[in-house]
Amino acid sequence: MSAIITLTTDFGLAEAYVAAMKGVILSLNPEAKLVDICHSIKPQNISQAAFILSTAYQFFPERTIHLVVVDPGVGTERRAIILRTPLADFVAPDNGVLSYVIRQFPAGPLNVSRRQIELAPELQAVAITKPEFWMSPVSATFHGRDIFAPVAARLSLGLPPEDFGEPITSLAVLPMPSLDQETDTLTGYVIHIDNFGNLITNIKRTDLPQEHPPVVIEVGNKRISGLSRTYAESEGLLAIIGSSGYLEIALKNGNAGAFLGAEPGSEVKIRKKVGKLPRF
Amino acid sequence: MSAIITLTTDFGLAEAYVAAMKGVILSLNPEAKLVDICHSIKPQNISQAAFILSTAYQFFPERTIHLVVVDPGVGTERRAIILRTPLADFVAPDNGVLSYVIRQFPAGPLNVSRRQIELAPELQAVAITKPEFWMSPVSATFHGRDIFAPVAARLSLGLPPEDFGEPITSLAVLPMPSLDQETDTLTGYVIHIDNFGNLITNIKRTDLPQEHPPVVIEVGNKRISGLSRTYAESEGLLAIIGSSGYLEIALKNGNAGAFLGAEPGSEVKIRKKVGKLPRF
Amino acid sequence: MSAIITLTTDFGLAEAYVAAMKGVILSLNPEAKLVDICHSIKPQNISQAAFILSTAYQFFPERTIHLVVVDPGVGTERRAIILRTPLADFVAPDNGVLSYVIRQFPAGPLNVSRRQIELAPELQAVAITKPEFWMSPVSATFHGRDIFAPVAARLSLGLPPEDFGEPITSLAVLPMPSLDQETDTLTGYVIHIDNFGNLITNIKRTDLPQEHPPVVIEVGNKRISGLSRTYAESEGLLAIIGSSGYLEIALKNGNAGAFLGAEPGSEVKIRKKVGKLPRF
Repeated sequence: MSAIITLTTDFGLAEAYVAAMKGVILSLNPEAKLVDICHSIKPQNISQAAFILSTAYQFFPERTIHLVVVDPGVGTERRAIILRTPLADFVAPDNGVLSYVIRQFPAGPLNVSRRQIELAPELQAVAITKPEFWMSPVSATFHGRDIFAPVAARLSLGLPPEDFGEPITSLAVLPMPSLDQETDTLTGYVIHIDNFGNLITNIKRTDLPQEHPPVVIEVGNKRISGLSRTYAESEGLLAIIGSSGYLEIALKNGNAGAFLGAEPGSEVKIRKKVGKLPRF
Repeated sequence: MSAIITLTTDFGLAEAYVAAMKGVILSLNPEAKLVDICHSIKPQNISQAAFILSTAYQFFPERTIHLVVVDPGVGTERRAIILRTPLADFVAPDNGVLSYVIRQFPAGPLNVSRRQIELAPELQAVAITKPEFWMSPVSATFHGRDIFAPVAARLSLGLPPEDFGEPITSLAVLPMPSLDQETDTLTGYVIHIDNFGNLITNIKRTDLPQEHPPVVIEVGNKRISGLSRTYAESEGLLAIIGSSGYLEIALKNGNAGAFLGAEPGSEVKIRKKVGKLPRF
Repeated sequence: MSAIITLTTDFGLAEAYVAAMKGVILSLNPEAKLVDICHSIKPQNISQAAFILSTAYQFFPERTIHLVVVDPGVGTERRAIILRTPLADFVAPDNGVLSYVIRQFPAGPLNVSRRQIELAPELQAVAITKPEFWMSPVSATFHGRDIFAPVAARLSLGLPPEDFGEPITSLAVLPMPSLDQETDTLTGYVIHIDNFGNLITNIKRTDLPQEHPPVVIEVGNKRISGLSRTYAESEGLLAIIGSSGYLEIALKNGNAGAFLGAEPGSEVKIRKKVGKLPRF
């Protein structure tokens, strides 16, 4: 059975950057099976890439290799890494793009100021430092082709992660939804607006109070009362846990993003409905 | 030889929805060969999807499986179906998206009010009803990943259609070009505007009078006199039978869609050129 | 090992044209491995296609077949060709789309008026003229599906180029950067604007004076002094040799294309910095 390598980038589809990466991979492992996850990540939008990846990777066969190149820090000192989980391998810059993968495991302490999290024991990470596995010379601007692609290809041939560099024990993560203890308000943000105009937030089902007590969701200048179970049961604006497990804001028969003037990064707040504030 | 599965959706390319479906398929059949037909169908535009599919599926090898997820009725009572033709298999919602496939066979009676057509004897159809072949749990909003993809994958492993549910004998179809007997006018509509601005209509070569008698084509406020055989032989607006066998409206060295202000759904009428009206 | 066939077209992603070509290829060679290079070439933009192809093809394994269908002359007398280089095979219209491939080899004389170049001896070219290898009938408008795809598929099965038609010794090429001897100014043009707004020109590293003497680059109404080695080392507008070996104009933390109002085709001039003009 051939190894599967998926690709997620912000290179867009008007370029040959993705194809160059595929050519590099196939030159090293002609039997690799390549699957695009998404190349329309907004340029350098790590948060969107992290979300998009998290909605798809878990549906792939065990030991699939996920190559992620959304890399505003290319050419700086940001690390390039391999992350091995019980399900899959990831090859990516260490910039938070694997946040939702990492957070699916019981985490060690989070160093908020450095935005670094200690990895759970079932996760193995390596800093990619050994240039003998890269293209030569390495360009200053296209590590996707020159470092990440050849590393993913060689990983798909069976080389173990530790061959590519030193073990590391903490990785960068993005800000997660935060709870204001005083007002008991959970604040997250829009990480993605889909093809239908639905707003996808970084708030997961498990961030919400159990058993859906009455809550009010605030986004833009609007308030939504309670969560819907299906798109069909409500009128107008509605909040729903989407098929990926994240809180989504939708507009019945309309485009929520346009209606609310929301963008990736827009705040979404959740409070208890009446009087007493929710305790999450 | 590995099974080929094609995918046609309205999920766009800014999402990981298509990738999630591919992951599900590869988890069940790692040898499946996946080919994208189109994921830029306008959201919920069944008519456009039906056309796009019809222009491509017949060029694939025999027994290719075509997975089509343009599904505005997801979560309602619309059926999910498998259609087996002498050439290929289709896995799709029963909403008309297979109209042009079905209409390539001598059809049984059409129930116009229900928009249902009796299938020709060489076609086999099944309602997908057996949940043991689906993902579990099934989300309310993403049957592409949770029902259609696993069914297509298992079909590619050799399971016969009848294993997935009960045989059915009629399927939904879209409105076809209609002939007004009194004015002898054939009315179709624009189903697609291509990358070059050409308008593709739902009127097929075989809907037109034989041997191209003089006709007038009306679209927007413009009239086109007669059919051209090549783009090169005419000036300005022209009508031509395109490479897919459908009547197309093009503008020499220009964008017909922008020039005419036409959109998918715009009417196209065909009349005889002078005095006496055409008899189709 | 299965043959790899890449595809580069201006068909866009809202169509099934590319899928129809893939279906034709897989019908003839079910084991072919298909990789998209780019389908978002601007309609009929040969120059952009030539550049995009040149940035990707060299990263693919030896003997990959590159199918290029950007073909404004479809239906006219322009030739369809196969080009075999020591690295790869190309199937394309003879309209200059292979210019950068051809120019990587020491070239014979250029016939400027006919824009034809004599091929270097290590290159083999054939005019595709034998209809027994095409689809039948051939449509007037879609040679990608009816001629180029089946030829590429049969080439991938091991047929030699000479089976498809007569040997030819010269091919069409695009205008290359030109040196005005009087003012000693090298004039090239923008061939592509990437996802980040960077302008990619047709001026290669090897067109520039050796060892980066002081030069001034003019584009729009702006002047850029000298070449940068990394994006990080400069502020504002900068010129850099990009990862593909072409001169690029970028705007630090911004979109150079929008800032300069530049488009594909916009002129880029290079002069020596002070007094004496550069001798290239």
